[in-house]
Amino acid sequence: MSAVMKLEECRKQISTELDNVVDFWLKYSHDTEYGGFFTCIGRDGKVYDELKYVWLQGRQVWMYCRLYRTMDRFHKPEILEAAKAGGTFLRKFARMSTSSDQWKCAFCLTREGKAVKVQRTIFSECFYILAMDELSRVTGDKDMQLEAEQMMQQLIHWVRVDPSGLGRPQLPGDIPSNGMAVPMMLLCLVQQLTEGRGEELVQKYRELGSWCVKQILQHIQRDGAAILENVSLDGAELPGCQGRLQNPGHALEAGWFLIQYTAESGDEELQKTAISKFVELPYQHGWDKEHGGLFYFLDVDGHCPTQLEWSMKLWWPHCEALVAFLMAYSETKKPELLERFFQVCEYTFSHFPDAESGEWFGYLTQEGKVALDFKGGPFKGFFHVPRCLYMCERILDDLLANKD
Amino acid sequence: MSAVMKLEECRKQISTELDNVVDFWLKYSHDTEYGGFFTCIGRDGKVYDELKYVWLQGRQVWMYCRLYRTMDRFHKPEILEAAKAGGTFLRKFARMSTSSDQWKCAFCLTREGKAVKVQRTIFSECFYILAMDELSRVTGDKDMQLEAEQMMQQLIHWVRVDPSGLGRPQLPGDIPSNGMAVPMMLLCLVQQLTEGRGEELVQKYRELGSWCVKQILQHIQRDGAAILENVSLDGAELPGCQGRLQNPGHALEAGWFLIQYTAESGDEELQKTAISKFVELPYQHGWDKEHGGLFYFLDVDGHCPTQLEWSMKLWWPHCEALVAFLMAYSETKKPELLERFFQVCEYTFSHFPDAESGEWFGYLTQEGKVALDFKGGPFKGFFHVPRCLYMCERILDDLLANKD
Repeated sequence: MSAVMKLEECRKQISTELDNVVDFWLKYSHDTEYGGFFTCIGRDGKVYDELKYVWLQGRQVWMYCRLYRTMDRFHKPEILEAAKAGGTFLRKFARMSTSSDQWKCAFCLTREGKAVKVQRTIFSECFYILAMDELSRVTGDKDMQLEAEQMMQQLIHWVRVDPSGLGRPQLPGDIPSNGMAVPMMLLCLVQQLTEGRGEELVQKYRELGSWCVKQILQHIQRDGAAILENVSLDGAELPGCQGRLQNPGHALEAGWFLIQYTAESGDEELQKTAISKFVELPYQHGWDKEHGGLFYFLDVDGHCPTQLEWSMKLWWPHCEALVAFLMAYSETKKPELLERFFQVCEYTFSHFPDAESGEWFGYLTQEGKVALDFKGGPFKGFFHVPRCLYMCERILDDLLANKD
Repeated sequence: MSAVMKLEECRKQISTELDNVVDFWLKYSHDTEYGGFFTCIGRDGKVYDELKYVWLQGRQVWMYCRLYRTMDRFHKPEILEAAKAGGTFLRKFARMSTSSDQWKCAFCLTREGKAVKVQRTIFSECFYILAMDELSRVTGDKDMQLEAEQMMQQLIHWVRVDPSGLGRPQLPGDIPSNGMAVPMMLLCLVQQLTEGRGEELVQKYRELGSWCVKQILQHIQRDGAAILENVSLDGAELPGCQGRLQNPGHALEAGWFLIQYTAESGDEELQKTAISKFVELPYQHGWDKEHGGLFYFLDVDGHCPTQLEWSMKLWWPHCEALVAFLMAYSETKKPELLERFFQVCEYTFSHFPDAESGEWFGYLTQEGKVALDFKGGPFKGFFHVPRCLYMCERILDDLLANKD
């Protein structure tokens, strides 16, 4: 088969899969009584728990809006209405005022919207912002956009000025560190808040964007031989398990965030680094040569990670790998990157989708057997699968449109 | 082979195994520079992380003292000195004063003893009390015993009067519930603090003991057909995953705590309940008919649990099952309970011990393959394996001494 034919076939498979996944969540996840989305959804679509996880509420709103706004076949009232209902639920229930005059978002709500759990991190707020900004783009609601920007200011304050509002006690042995997730999420938000919004906003967040990039690059360790998930604030390796931890899926996701960033900034050196260090390296370390698929966690010195699930194959690192390799190929046209994309495709599509009831399984054993058979859970919602399929379909469209 | 010969052979195996396990921790876990114990110990005995987990520090002190105090062959200065050094480290570093004039114990310390993490639960304190009380018994240090009792009063206050000192925010959707761990730990502490200490202390904790038993019995649900890990404060089933969760190893541990309690109180009805509901039932639900071994978590309605490790075979539920079945047999002499004991023995001894480097692996896949190969980690220390072997050896000694 020619490369073009292979790309065309792949595009078709991805596009069909995206339709199926969207249908699954439209059909099973909407809480028409209390608003918001159910995300604990069993293999066959049955809701097995009514708790509403704020990360997943925000992500689903974002994803619906993004599909509605940028893909003709999803520009349907049903999708817009679902996104708006999710946004209403979030605005009504996710934010909790704290003693210090700051807004904190809950991590988990009851079906009716009562707070069950709050995390002392920034991530609920990140997905709240993602939802509000994207929703404001399809509704034209300027208040909502403003709200997203205000929450963003608070996030920046927590991350760069004073984290005390997060509620974590300061402990003498708990030395502040630079975890990959924080600059990645902030970079993602910078891209979200500024996309197509004019020079003033771009300017406002420019310094933050390049700060995020610097923070992400600090995770290149061992003379460029490894990406480590946690480093010290001045970019040195941390002691113990925390310091040696590798999360290949996360590094790959950072990889495509960086490639996307360089596509706008035109920084070729950074693009090269993004591809060699954040795409190729995590694949080399993270791919299971025996059974295929990406490990969830690894220890850079080869010790056994302490996370019980370290050797499991999760859906989302594979989603990130697909986007990362295809985007890297699209930017460079290096055939070896396309080959990797097809290899990850092969593993992913032969292991994760559930031909019987639709959507993807999320959690496989090291050997590739389904270990948890639900379609949605506390951390798996309408996000990584559709985002991956959406991104890949668009990149494939571009590649096929410019194939000569 | 006759039943007695089988018991004798089993006793020999268990006793040899206990010697080996004690040797392993004596050899590899002592931090002679900063005090306390390393617990992140790799397959071959190498320390792969220097963090000191307070649960495991307390448990190791308790276990050393218990062996020293009650088994002649472990009544060695080396063991006493190690226990005392662990106790010194705990007293010096584990307790942190809080704003509210209460003592909270850290969850995790640096090698030198600086607090890294605090949990908003009671368990670090529980193992601190366990350590201090048992250590006071071998050293005769009355101050230490008093300290254990004072900490116990605070625990009781947190559990039965006002939990605000634990630092958990009160959230409208977070309805207080009765998790199995809390009454189990308190019952264990009541037994620890009162054992052989005279009527006054027994009296002091009698009401608490029977309160714990009532709380544990509330976990019998579905008309006696299942033990559920979390129930409401008035003993009803909770909604969702939390309410349907089963933890067979935990139920089995509660089982032998209850049998031990009834051995003192002489309550035959309670003993029957303990054996049928907390020993036989969790085995029936929790045993993997296909691959053998006990599942870590199950959902009573057969949904897939959301814990990624639900189907893994962990060492400690098997330790609890061994003690539970042997103790139940010892109390009742019912042959089917002894058969189960031998069945669990067979699985346990053919899967967990590492013939090459000593000690036990802690984490197997559902199929019984070693998934994490370290001997100690953030939750696996010198506790479940030696406690199980110690308990079983003593019960087997009794059985063999009274075999006619």
